[in-house]
Parts: sequence; structure tokens; C-alpha cells
Amino acid sequence: MNVILYPGGRRVDLAPGQTLMEAGRQLAGHGQTAIEAPCGGKGHCGQCRVIVRHGNVTPANSTEKAFIEPSDLDKGVRLACQCVALGPVHVEIPPETMSAVPNLQIAGDEARVALDPPVRRFTVRLRPTTRQHPFSLWRQIEREIAATHPVQDLKAAPYLIRAHDPTAADTKVRVILRGQELTGLYPGDVPAPPLLGMAVDLGTTKVAGYLVDLESGKLLASEGVMNPQTGLGADVISRLTYANGHPDNAAGLSRLARDCIRHLALTLTQRIGAALTGIEQVVVAANTAMHHLLLQWPVRQLGFSPYLPASTAPTTVRARELDLNFAQGARIYLLPPLAGYVGGDHLAMILATRIYEAHGVTLGFDIGTNTEIVLACHGRLYSCSCASGPAFEGAQIRQGVRAVPGAVHAVRMVADGRAILKTIADKPPVGLCGSGVVDAVAELVRIGVVNPLGALDRGHPRVEMVAPGSEPRFVLAGADSVKGGRSLFLWQKDITAIQLAKAAVGAGTSALMAAAGITPADVERIVIAGAFGTHLNLKSAIRIGLLPGLPVQCFSQVGNAAGTGARMVLVSETERHRVETLGSRIEYIELGGNPKFQQWFSQSLRFPELGA
Amino acid sequence: MNVILYPGGRRVDLAPGQTLMEAGRQLAGHGQTAIEAPCGGKGHCGQCRVIVRHGNVTPANSTEKAFIEPSDLDKGVRLACQCVALGPVHVEIPPETMSAVPNLQIAGDEARVALDPPVRRFTVRLRPTTRQHPFSLWRQIEREIAATHPVQDLKAAPYLIRAHDPTAADTKVRVILRGQELTGLYPGDVPAPPLLGMAVDLGTTKVAGYLVDLESGKLLASEGVMNPQTGLGADVISRLTYANGHPDNAAGLSRLARDCIRHLALTLTQRIGAALTGIEQVVVAANTAMHHLLLQWPVRQLGFSPYLPASTAPTTVRARELDLNFAQGARIYLLPPLAGYVGGDHLAMILATRIYEAHGVTLGFDIGTNTEIVLACHGRLYSCSCASGPAFEGAQIRQGVRAVPGAVHAVRMVADGRAILKTIADKPPVGLCGSGVVDAVAELVRIGVVNPLGALDRGHPRVEMVAPGSEPRFVLAGADSVKGGRSLFLWQKDITAIQLAKAAVGAGTSALMAAAGITPADVERIVIAGAFGTHLNLKSAIRIGLLPGLPVQCFSQVGNAAGTGARMVLVSETERHRVETLGSRIEYIELGGNPKFQQWFSQSLRFPELGA
Repeated sequence: MNVILYPGGRRVDLAPGQTLMEAGRQLAGHGQTAIEAPCGGKGHCGQCRVIVRHGNVTPANSTEKAFIEPSDLDKGVRLACQCVALGPVHVEIPPETMSAVPNLQIAGDEARVALDPPVRRFTVRLRPTTRQHPFSLWRQIEREIAATHPVQDLKAAPYLIRAHDPTAADTKVRVILRGQELTGLYPGDVPAPPLLGMAVDLGTTKVAGYLVDLESGKLLASEGVMNPQTGLGADVISRLTYANGHPDNAAGLSRLARDCIRHLALTLTQRIGAALTGIEQVVVAANTAMHHLLLQWPVRQLGFSPYLPASTAPTTVRARELDLNFAQGARIYLLPPLAGYVGGDHLAMILATRIYEAHGVTLGFDIGTNTEIVLACHGRLYSCSCASGPAFEGAQIRQGVRAVPGAVHAVRMVADGRAILKTIADKPPVGLCGSGVVDAVAELVRIGVVNPLGALDRGHPRVEMVAPGSEPRFVLAGADSVKGGRSLFLWQKDITAIQLAKAAVGAGTSALMAAAGITPADVERIVIAGAFGTHLNLKSAIRIGLLPGLPVQCFSQVGNAAGTGARMVLVSETERHRVETLGSRIEYIELGGNPKFQQWFSQSLRFPELGA
Repeated sequence: MNVILYPGGRRVDLAPGQTLMEAGRQLAGHGQTAIEAPCGGKGHCGQCRVIVRHGNVTPANSTEKAFIEPSDLDKGVRLACQCVALGPVHVEIPPETMSAVPNLQIAGDEARVALDPPVRRFTVRLRPTTRQHPFSLWRQIEREIAATHPVQDLKAAPYLIRAHDPTAADTKVRVILRGQELTGLYPGDVPAPPLLGMAVDLGTTKVAGYLVDLESGKLLASEGVMNPQTGLGADVISRLTYANGHPDNAAGLSRLARDCIRHLALTLTQRIGAALTGIEQVVVAANTAMHHLLLQWPVRQLGFSPYLPASTAPTTVRARELDLNFAQGARIYLLPPLAGYVGGDHLAMILATRIYEAHGVTLGFDIGTNTEIVLACHGRLYSCSCASGPAFEGAQIRQGVRAVPGAVHAVRMVADGRAILKTIADKPPVGLCGSGVVDAVAELVRIGVVNPLGALDRGHPRVEMVAPGSEPRFVLAGADSVKGGRSLFLWQKDITAIQLAKAAVGAGTSALMAAAGITPADVERIVIAGAFGTHLNLKSAIRIGLLPGLPVQCFSQVGNAAGTGARMVLVSETERHRVETLGSRIEYIELGGNPKFQQWFSQSLRFPELGA
């Protein structure tokens, strides 16, 4: 059974008898669902309302009739967990039913920049065109704008000229100006809808969207969703491999990214009661691979040294070229990639944190599957990317989970060797998320159960082996101690995964400091961006040697700085020029070809000595 | 029976039994045919070869078998005059069979300008991308171009980046640069095809195309065809009326104009063995109505005062936006209209004749259904448009014809009152073309058979009336005197039509001189552009008062100056800037609202006195 889901128009396939809830699960993937279902799809809550727009489904059952008004049933409203498709159907998920991915970091600091957006709106009072006043609509608009705004050779876009009678009546109009070009014309006698821009942080796993009023700079709405490409490859490498497999694959990945941006835009505009066509400008900050996959640019060369981006230029495309039905003149601006593994999202982070204008010595980290590091050192900027792997995001950890409710995000060992666990939303523990794993390892290092080489002390009473000679594990929570949760262990291999990840970051840090000719003692400030970095316990990160051991007050945890940077570029042409200049200022340090890399990596593998 | 004709893909409808020749006639309209048929479709010449690509037709008859090789018959080659469609068919007219409109003025003077085209081509030797030489294809191209050509922030077009592997091999490439953007990339190890541009003079009746080598400025081929819109309205007004009737009509007219440009481009490129995709730039000079109809811009307001163009800005569109499959980055540049009845073609004429830089006082005329006049007077430029009507083009004349073989183009009265007629290609006379009518009227004025008020002398032996009291006519050629031709007459109404037409031109000339504060005695030079003006007998034109009575050496007849101007703009950005500046320099004189117009018109109605 084909099911087409709106917004987005994506197709999923159901086995006979499966409910529409299953379609929502398929759409989201990864055990998530695109349809909100607080009761887990048992028909207890009545929240999973969808609208069947087209096609045959089972008649409404008694559960549905109990939750849905007859007038809504007539309109096709159904409960996704009860309704079964009997043939191809088109189903709309209304905004109140769409599920957001829980606890996704999208806040960031409020962007504080002087407004200088790429599009402006003017209201013009027109006089009728007559023989005595022989001025066309366009000429009158040009004159009015030129009277208050310094612009030369102002021109209307050909599609506007085509669509509008050039003679003017006695009325008011609102026009959109982009550079020297008029790109929109709307009636001026009605209340003005907001002039909208959208910033997108297009990550490998998560996509955050920010809807901004371009005239006030105000954030109107924000939302985070999973990158729908995840189903075709969880990490960058597997996704690039998939893209290289067949041109249709690359086209499909691009389609998914566009759909995701459209979906986000629809969610955000619906939330404020605005139209998609009100969006005049989009700014996308992405890592190089996501940037290329969105534009369907070649990615084969990203798989081998020297890891060349197809282009390192900032790119602007019309929204229509990406099949995004925003305002007719809408443009998509993509921040330039700097290198194969240092993307526009890293530039956005450097912009947002103002690291580029730091005096003295500042290190900036955006820790994830790839960790980008920037070093500002007396006016110069160095940057690199380390393959830290997904351990910090809870993957490659035996009981690792994403930052969902019930994920352990903090661990504290008490005197008797027991572990006190804190979970997201105080739910019974379901696993360890990245900050929880780092905390657990740090605590075990602190109490000496993990030695500097990373080995678990097999003699410790809470270290056990399932069978003699098998992999040891530390019991964080036994079956007896946890109500409604699972037993939790930290396995030897989990510790090793964290060790390798932090060694990669440490080696990158060493490479940048070597390039700048400084030592760790010279570092004065550390900025940590990104979701993982925001929830990271700094003392634990220092304890395991992931971050240099500066006093805690020297650190700033700035949240999703890439999204903030994208929003700054969205509302300010000055910031856009600045970020483009930044790209040429940064000295990119390629770790792959560096003969010293292995040495730095080995040095960074060790955990700091007890008491150090 | 539907017949689709290629190139162009236009559809015509045949009655059962009609041959494909009829399809060619329908396509061309106006008694012309799109398929060359020297024998008139009698099956005597074998020239009307077409290729039936698809569909059922009658089997080849003995006539076709006599002219066409069996191997060609197998390929679908047929004689259009013999072959009958038995159902829907697709027919291709090969270039050698396409008919050009005879004796169309497309020559113009060779444009002499310094080359400064909007696109340039560079050949770049690439080195392989390696870890030691980590430079992408694009970076290498940028460096190479920047070494010899002053360009900043050079960028490759996104569609190029998408289409090409960014790593470079040891090879040569040719790239196309437009401004700061690379818009094309081709193999460099093969002989270079020419870098093509096309200039188009898009007239109400005729369309001339010029294929130009943008690197040498050389004219490679030129061709003229009838404007296929003619079938939907012979003159501007009827075509605008048709366009306003229904949005589909406007879309259809636009489609016809685009098809015509594509057809011309195909003919021209095939003639030199080049590909359509070699065309990188097109410049279109058109009157305001043709310009708007091509772009499908609003034309309703061109029908009433103040006759506003939808926009007077120069316009650039992508070739793809007009469905023209030229080079991927190809642009169509349209010269700006100046006013409702003074178009970019007039600006092109002023550019080509360099009237704008004339010292002293120069008048320029482009005589046609609308006659545009420009007056350059001590550094200032004045311009107007007069509704001279189609008489000068042979229409509204009882026996008027276009400039086809057999058209009388010159008339000389000899002592006994007989008229000596000269015809195009010395064929038996079929009618009078514009210059022939002017000649005939001028001669009758000279010998006094037409008086200053325009009346035929009914007492003259060669003036006759078909019935008493009916319209008199002058016998130019009686049935007895013409072998194989028709009897030819100049009717009283023909004379009146010419009188009204020249009065309109005279009134326009007076209006410009009044605006500049000069008299006819101040005029030092007269430039006459356009097909009609080129074939015009100057003495006759002066005799009837169409042109001021300067010595003949003060006149220049410059041919299709609009086409020449378009070619200048095509090969030179300097000329493009110049023509755009010209637009703002010209003082446009609207005749419609001028209270003195009626007086000037009345004064201009009279023919100059005998002996004056």
C-alpha cells in the first residue's frame, strides 16, 4: 500500500493491515515517528490525528468515534493508530500532530547584529497613470524608493513586469527590493504579513530551522527535525558511499534534504499563521557533505585525499531551483565550505562566537561525529577537522542512546562505588547519551577503576564479566536498583571508543597549536559549540583529557552557534561579507597528510594520571 | 490531419487529400511557403524535399521516384508537392528546402566596433589534482584566467559545478566566462567551434537574424524570415488587439516569436555546420510591441495614451526562460524600449548610424508602418514615432505587393505619358511595392497628372474610370503592353494613402524641429534606415514631400541599421552601455497630445508645387 504523507509528499509503503501510525514511523525512521503518539499508538490518548485526503481506508472504529467529532470525521480526520489503508492513500499530518525530535539543541544565543537584510520592503502610494501624469507603476515605485533609499538603476524583475498592469491606479502597494531588483509586488491596503527569512543548520543527523522577521530581526519560531537522509546512511561516509553508488541515489538524497527544508519551513510558517510564499531568503549552514548533497554536487572526491570540496565559493541559488515554493524571488544562500571536512557550519560558528576577532589565544570546538576545531591566535585563525566518530553522540556505545527522555546525561560515583544517574526528563533510564558516557568514564578515571591506559580494573567489585575471559563491564545500575528501567553497564569497549574519540580531538588540538607555535599553557579561552558540547560536563571533559585543563570560568558553552551564525548572515549583508572574508583568512590544517599526527594521537590516547 | 513541422515543431491542419506543400503554405502564410518550390508545386523541379519522420503518408509516386534516390526514399525523403498525409505526421523541412523570403533587407553596414563581448573563452591547461597539488579544476581555472584577465571573485555557475568532477586530470579545457561567472566548460583537446552570438532584428513583418563569431566579430551567416505572428494580425494594432483578447493569445504570440528565433538560429547554425548550443548570447532589437509580445509582457496599455511600455529598462533573460535551447549559460538581451511606439530597434538604429554624436543637425528616419524619426541637434536628441500606416510597404495599395520578384520598384514617366516600369528580378510585373508606389506618385506629381491637393487629372488620356463617377485610376500598364504580367493601375485611393502616410511623417518631422527650435533649412544631413528606405528613390521621396529637399549628397541610405546596431551591442559591452545611456538622453516627443499636430499634418498633406 502506497501512502503519500503531507507536508512533504513523501511516499512510504505499508504491509496490508498496518496502520497509518506505521507510515509515520517509516517516515521518521530510527524508532522515531513523525506522528505524535503519547500513548504509544494504543488508542488511549486520541492525539495522533491525521487527515486522509484521498484513497480508501477502514471505516472509523469506536475508538476513533470516541475521540473525533462527527464533523471532523466527515472531513477525513482519523487516528493514525487505528486507521488502516485499503489502497493508495494521501495523508496529511497537521502541525499539532507532527512530532518534533525531543530535546534537540536549537536555541543558540540571540543573534545581536545590526539589521542589514538582503531584501527590504517598501510601501508606495501610487497615483493613477494619466496623460498628464504619464508614469507607469514601475516608474512611480522607482522614484519613491530612490527618494529614501540609495539605489541606482532599480529594475523590476521580468516576471513581475509580466504579471502586472504597468499603469497605476490610486492605491498603495508593498514592494520587495533585493539589491537593485524589485522581486515582489503586493497589495498595500491590507495589514502587512511579516517579511520572512529562514536560517537552516543542516546537520548530518539533525536539521534546525529558524524563522526570522527580516524587518525586526526577531526570531519568530524554531524547530528541529531529524535529517531524513539518515535512513540512507547514518554518518557522512556511509551517505557519501550511497550517493556515489548511483546518480539516482544522489538525486534522492538531494530530494530528501529539500523536502526536509520545505517541511521545516511549512511547520514554522504554519506555527505563526504565515504563508510559505512569505519566505524571501534562506541561509543554509551545513557541513561540506550535506552542502554538496543538497545541491547534488559531486562528492566522490570527498572520499580521498586531498578531500576537495567541489567549490569553496559561497553559493546562491533560486529557491525554485531547489523546488522550494517560497516567494517568487526567494534565494537560498549557502555558506561556503572551507575544506572537505570543514564546512560552512564551522564558519557560521566562528562568526557567531566572534572568535575571529579574539585577542590572545582562543580555542573553539564543535564536537560531534566530526569535530571541528578553530584556534584564534594573535589575529590568525587555524582550523582543522578530526574524525572523532559517533561515540560522543551515544553511538558505538553498547547502551548508547540519543538525547531522548530517559537517557542518562550525568553520572556521579559515590563513596561505596555506586553510581548516581540523572536522566533526561527524570524518566527511568533507557541508556547513556554522549554527556552521560563522558561523565561515566571520567568518574571511573577519577576513582581509579579505569587506569590511564583505559583498562577497567577487573578486581573492582562492580566490574563483572558475563563469562570468564569475556569483555569486562562496569555495573552502573543493576537490575535490582532501577525501577522500570534497564540495567546499565559501561563496557570496556565503550571506554575504548571514548578514548579513541578524545584522542582524535586531542591530536587535532595539538596540530593547531603546533601550527601556531604555542603550547596548551598559552590558551586563554575555550568556546564549545553544538548540542553535545552544551550538555557536556566540563570537569568530566577535562578529566578524560578531551578538553585542555583550564579553569571552568575560561570556558563558554554557546549552544548551536552554527544556527546562530546562519541567522546573523540571514539578517545582515555585513555579516555575510564578513563570513565570506573569514573563509579566506582561515589557515586550514589537513591532519591526514601530517607526519606528526600519529604521535599526537598516541599521546592523547592516555587518560590523565590520577591527581593530575 | 495534424502536421507538425520541424524545425520549430509548429502544427498545421490539412484537409484530406492536401499535400505537405500546403502545410508549408499554411506555416508561412500570406501566399508564401516555408518549403522552396521553384516550379510552384507542379512536380517539375524536385526541389521541395522534406523528410517524413513519423506517421502515415501516401506511398511514393512515380514523380517522386524519378527525383529521389531509393536510399533517400527509405529514409523518409519525399516531395512535399506529391506526398499526402493519411493521418497525423511529423515532417522535417531540411535547410536546403527552407524558403527564405525573397529580397529581404538584412545586409546593413558591417559593424565596426572594438570587440568587447559579454562572454569570453579561455583555454586552460590543467595539472592533475594530487595531495601535493591539491587544487581543484575550478581553482586551477580561476588562477589561469586571473593571470591574464582582470577579474575578481570568479565563480563557476552552480550547474557547472554539479556537472563536473572537481578534481583535474592532465588535460586541456575551454571555459566560457561571463562577467565573473564561468558558464561553460568544454574539452580543450579538440578544434574549437566558433563562439557564437546572434543578433535579431525582430520586426512586425520581418525578422532578420545575424550569426556572429564573438571572438572575431565576423558575420558568419544572416537570414531573414517573415514574422510568423503575421497570421494573427498584419500590423501592430491588430496583433495587440489579438493579444488582449485572451491570455492564451498572448502566450501563442510569444510562442511564435520564440519559435521564429529558434528557427532562425537553427537555419544559421546549420549553414555553418555549428550546433545551436554554441550560441552564448543573443541581442534582440525590436519595436516596443514585438519586444513585449516576445516576453509576454502586458500590452493593453500600449493601446491608449500615454502609450506606456510595461518597462523601459534593458532586459536580460536566460535563453532557457524563453525555451531556447542554446548554450546552457546563454542570455537574451533585449534593447530597452523608449516609448510605446519608439522601441529598442530605433535605439539600435541611432547607435549604428552614430547620429547621437553628430555635430550640427541630422535627421534620421526609419520608415515603415510606424516611422520613427530622430533629430540630432547640437548635442541634443529628439525622437518621435508617426503612424504612417502600411502604404510604404505596399499594403493599403490596391495592387500593392511586398518586395517579391515581379514587384514594380521603380517607375519613370516618358514624354508620351507612358510609364516605364522596373520589376524586382526583371520578372513580369505582379504589382507595386512601396518604392514603386512612391515613384509612381512622384512622377505623376512631376508631370502634373496629380495636383498639389492629390487629385488625379481626370482629363489626362491615361486616367480612366471603370464606370462614370467611379474612382479614377491611372493606367501604368495596360493589358496590351505587358507580356505575362497583369494590367497595373494607380488608383486615386492609392495616391491618397501615400499622401496621408507622408503627411504623418512630415508632421513628425515638424514636431521634432519645433521642439529643437529649428527650420528645415537648418538640416544638414539625413540618414535613412530600413528596407523600404534603402530602395527608396530619394528624388521621388523629396518630390512628394516625404523627405526634406536637401541635395542628394546629404543623404545616407544605411540599410537595416537596427540589425547593425543589435550586432554592435552583441559584440561590445561598451556599445551596450552606450545604447542604454542613449535611452536616457533622448527627448521623446509624443505627437498624440501635441495641440499643433493637426496643423503640421494639414500642411504636410499637400504635394509640393510643380517646379518647386
